[in-house]
Amino acid sequence: MIEHTTDLRVRYKETDAMGIVYHGNYFTWFEVGRVRLLDAAGFPYRALNEMGYHLPVLEAHANYKASAKFDDEIAITAFIREMPRVRIKIEYEVKRGDTLLVTGHTQHAFIDNSGAAVKPPPEFMAKLKESF
Amino acid sequence: MIEHTTDLRVRYKETDAMGIVYHGNYFTWFEVGRVRLLDAAGFPYRALNEMGYHLPVLEAHANYKASAKFDDEIAITAFIREMPRVRIKIEYEVKRGDTLLVTGHTQHAFIDNSGAAVKPPPEFMAKLKESF
Amino acid sequence: MIEHTTDLRVRYKETDAMGIVYHGNYFTWFEVGRVRLLDAAGFPYRALNEMGYHLPVLEAHANYKASAKFDDEIAITAFIREMPRVRIKIEYEVKRGDTLLVTGHTQHAFIDNSGAAVKPPPEFMAKLKESF
Amino acid sequence: MIEHTTDLRVRYKETDAMGIVYHGNYFTWFEVGRVRLLDAAGFPYRALNEMGYHLPVLEAHANYKASAKFDDEIAITAFIREMPRVRIKIEYEVKRGDTLLVTGHTQHAFIDNSGAAVKPPPEFMAKLKESF
Repeated sequence: MIEHTTDLRVRYKETDAMGIVYHGNYFTWFEVGRVRLLDAAGFPYRALNEMGYHLPVLEAHANYKASAKFDDEIAITAFIREMPRVRIKIEYEVKRGDTLLVTGHTQHAFIDNSGAAVKPPPEFMAKLKESF
Repeated sequence: MIEHTTDLRVRYKETDAMGIVYHGNYFTWFEVGRVRLLDAAGFPYRALNEMGYHLPVLEAHANYKASAKFDDEIAITAFIREMPRVRIKIEYEVKRGDTLLVTGHTQHAFIDNSGAAVKPPPEFMAKLKESF
Repeated sequence: MIEHTTDLRVRYKETDAMGIVYHGNYFTWFEVGRVRLLDAAGFPYRALNEMGYHLPVLEAHANYKASAKFDDEIAITAFIREMPRVRIKIEYEVKRGDTLLVTGHTQHAFIDNSGAAVKPPPEFMAKLKESF
Repeated sequence: MIEHTTDLRVRYKETDAMGIVYHGNYFTWFEVGRVRLLDAAGFPYRALNEMGYHLPVLEAHANYKASAKFDDEIAITAFIREMPRVRIKIEYEVKRGDTLLVTGHTQHAFIDNSGAAVKPPPEFMAKLKESF
């Protein structure tokens, strides 16, 4: 398993008229956690892009347990629990201190610059394997 | 079952560097579809708010089948297939012409202004029943 | 002068914890007004893109006079008061009924796919001239 | 003068189909810089909110000189150059390394929970004066 935790502060822009973070913004935070996880795994998402690979989202899911407010300090942990094959699944936990706010996951395909589905690049798989 | 379709055009703001609509933005479109569905059912979300009710999201899910681009004409259909009890589940289909782009659902609780979970207001339930 | 008015409803996503529309979102609405203005002038922004032209923003400005709330019906009027030369300036008025909420403007350059500053395409200028 | 610099990384969500950060998102970054500036000045925006004060935006302006891309490391410097009276003006510089990307400013009113314009709280003014 690979996991990595990223901290952020809630932006006013991310709140809504209920006074809490708009539910859809957690998917942006999942993205932040995912990008930092790949950084930590030694294969930044930016490097994948520069090699001509993209990871479009096939599925996105979130369960909301508690809400966050403006300026809260938030920790997003992203997990890869299984070595990806054609698809990659990433799971997320969003916490404020010990309070679990949201859990979720995303599934991604690998595509090339033409938009065709492709296998993950071998260098990427090799790098992930080091962490499993 | 209640259903309602809302049309919109893709905003440039909603696209990302892949040249397509960022996956998280579909949850905003789900919201647009949900709000217009409640309008069409005769009980606008704004009226619920004014009565002191809110519908925070408990669960959000999306499956991505095809992508949308800037300025595409998009149709969002929102469905309530079962009479809500304590929670309300709404399903969504996002299409461009005949092409199904994204499906998904959200689950919502009813809370009052203090944040406490409450039953849906009887007027709201009565109005929904008319449509079932 | 060219002008065009576009209507929209405030999304919950667009509100913030003050209970009003987040100020930065008016720039997205300016974009909506700008795109529809170009549609109405007979030269959609999408057509410009397909010809290899883009209109990056050089300057953006807004003055806030009154606030908008969730579900408000909003009218955005975009104006081109002077024939563009190298740059194009677009002005905006955002209203709810007779209430003026926000005024502003954006200035744009024309660039090609390589990012180089270019003159506006002659077909575009010819089309705009028809409206002046 | 008070100034403070905040670092952030560009989120994929913040990019658009031109492959660069959408112009409107700089106003969110200005907010991030502004909030951290008030933190550094010893009077967090959150504390103002809890005292019943809000700082709605009266005017927002940005000049765009160069673009930012996904994952760029960005530094936002916010400046208060003059002691506020009824209004407060904050200026911003957004850089990537030595490259100046965007400059801008916002003007804010002080309002209370009822939405009425009020003077800044004396504690806030006293704290700012320490930094001038």
